Amino acid sequence: MTAHPNEIAAMRRALAVAANGPRGFNPQVGAVILSPAGDVLAEGWHRGSGTAHAEVDALSKLRPEQTRGATAVVSLEPCNHTGRTGPCAQALIDAGISRVVYAVDDPGDDSSHGADRLRAAGVDVVSGVLGDQAREVIDSWLAVQRLGRPHVTVKWAQSLDGRVAAADGTSQWITGPASRADVHRRRALADAIVAGTGTVLADDPALTARTPEGDLLPDQPTPVVIGEREVPEGALLRRHPKPFEQYSGRDLPGVLAHLRQAGVQRVFVEGGPTLASAFIRAGLVDEILTYVAPVLLGSGESGDHPAIGAIGVDTIGAAPRLALQSVERLGDDILLVSTPVPIPSPAR
Amino acid sequence: MTAHPNEIAAMRRALAVAANGPRGFNPQVGAVILSPAGDVLAEGWHRGSGTAHAEVDALSKLRPEQTRGATAVVSLEPCNHTGRTGPCAQALIDAGISRVVYAVDDPGDDSSHGADRLRAAGVDVVSGVLGDQAREVIDSWLAVQRLGRPHVTVKWAQSLDGRVAAADGTSQWITGPASRADVHRRRALADAIVAGTGTVLADDPALTARTPEGDLLPDQPTPVVIGEREVPEGALLRRHPKPFEQYSGRDLPGVLAHLRQAGVQRVFVEGGPTLASAFIRAGLVDEILTYVAPVLLGSGESGDHPAIGAIGVDTIGAAPRLALQSVERLGDDILLVSTPVPIPSPAR
Repeated sequence: MTAHPNEIAAMRRALAVAANGPRGFNPQVGAVILSPAGDVLAEGWHRGSGTAHAEVDALSKLRPEQTRGATAVVSLEPCNHTGRTGPCAQALIDAGISRVVYAVDDPGDDSSHGADRLRAAGVDVVSGVLGDQAREVIDSWLAVQRLGRPHVTVKWAQSLDGRVAAADGTSQWITGPASRADVHRRRALADAIVAGTGTVLADDPALTARTPEGDLLPDQPTPVVIGEREVPEGALLRRHPKPFEQYSGRDLPGVLAHLRQAGVQRVFVEGGPTLASAFIRAGLVDEILTYVAPVLLGSGESGDHPAIGAIGVDTIGAAPRLALQSVERLGDDILLVSTPVPIPSPAR
Repeated sequence: MTAHPNEIAAMRRALAVAANGPRGFNPQVGAVILSPAGDVLAEGWHRGSGTAHAEVDALSKLRPEQTRGATAVVSLEPCNHTGRTGPCAQALIDAGISRVVYAVDDPGDDSSHGADRLRAAGVDVVSGVLGDQAREVIDSWLAVQRLGRPHVTVKWAQSLDGRVAAADGTSQWITGPASRADVHRRRALADAIVAGTGTVLADDPALTARTPEGDLLPDQPTPVVIGEREVPEGALLRRHPKPFEQYSGRDLPGVLAHLRQAGVQRVFVEGGPTLASAFIRAGLVDEILTYVAPVLLGSGESGDHPAIGAIGVDTIGAAPRLALQSVERLGDDILLVSTPVPIPSPAR
């Protein structure tokens, strides 16, 4: 069974209204109800945790006689799960909906199989309509479902020889303006930006996403500080448009679980070598951004500042292998994007 | 004045016969003598230090009445210098040559201005004919003239975070087969390959240029060992097709001067972090090849093995800046080719 042209048009509309809802613990989902003649009767979207799902939101705008025999077009498979709201599949059945067209299968263990429930009740079900576009809208949420925690990007800027500072600790600026602009653009795509107290105390970072002129970008990640030391009174971090959260101790899985509950889907870790190394050591990294500046720092009389410290690799066979996803020139620098290879590649 | 078609054809021939001569302290130069009617009378090439230059070699094959009024086509400006051989410009004048066509100006302080001497004697002179092709034939020799020493390439293979070995010192293999093949291909283009005794003792490298199957490539660099410790009796280095040279101590400019005298134009340094750092610290590097493998090594309980050690950079402003010339993917790895930026770029 395939979707009709007016159903595909309705799915486009469902994807557009999905963006009205908040990014957070729940996915952004949109729904459109079509009459048997194919006319739009109502639209709905998910407005955040604890509120009606998109299809129920749309149904709520119609009288029972309007929904009988109608078609529901939804960007995510209607849920089959009684959480803070009832199962949407049952709500559609109860409303007399005779046909459901959706884009993406629900990946949840508890919430999936809504389509099966609908089919068992005699409802026509078509899946996968505009699936790629729909997945793009909720790709971060889908990543969270797959990972069981927010998606973690670790970023650092280094010299060609893997140092983040010269012997005396000076580091501004290793990389150039094109790299810095790229970092700010990516910060704005994250829900949270994480730094260690060591970096906060040493560098006093603003942890904001800014234009090259220094203006704030429209989207700002929530700043998160990890470590026990207090953030100083005059720290730039205290002027961030969003109040920072601080987690003492080093229970990184616990921090991520807490952030997920708070609706964080994407975490941007750029808080210095100690924190980056801790995330790597804990196996909690999904993407690594390495900005490499064409400069050599070596080690000096007064110190050595490697980009990555102890990650528990004592012998070459134990080294975490990465897959290089892209190489991009940014002004004089290059950006290497890599992802961990889940299963160690065989020894060569 | 421009060259005639038969002179351009003769220049092509001169460039071809130039390759008959040896690569070494002197450039590879070819010469063709044309009759006034444009017919080829003789060819010559330079056969190495202390022997006749190409144009004199060609003249030597002709009787005086043949050279009178003839045209000499030479790939390098005839020299104006009395070294172990007399100045070629004068030899051409003495032979009654009426026209000289050459490709590349002689860059030497002592030997240049041969064209001026010829012109002063009433000889027609045309320069720059097939200049690009001719420069390509002697690019390494030209580099030596420009630098006053052999051209130095420093190569290392590192993890993404700039380490050459895991904490326990294990390093085989950080990079993959495509990177290793590329290294061997580049070794074969060098006249000498340089390693430190530390690397020779620790890794027992063969320092040969090999195919992926392990066979020797046709061209082999001369192995050079730097350091005071003795190369062990059973070392692979002792089975290199060319006997190795050893220089004790750390007078790197002296080593390079000695290698230049021995005809070395291109030096490939891949002898470990200590040696690489010493060349960088001494400002004796013209090209850096960094093979980056997508793996993280960090530091461990038992040690830290950075690609580059002490290079005398104590603060960020003193860091040598490089220009990234190319970025190439080699299997899972990438190769970054960079060159030192002679004048520090202004602080940004």
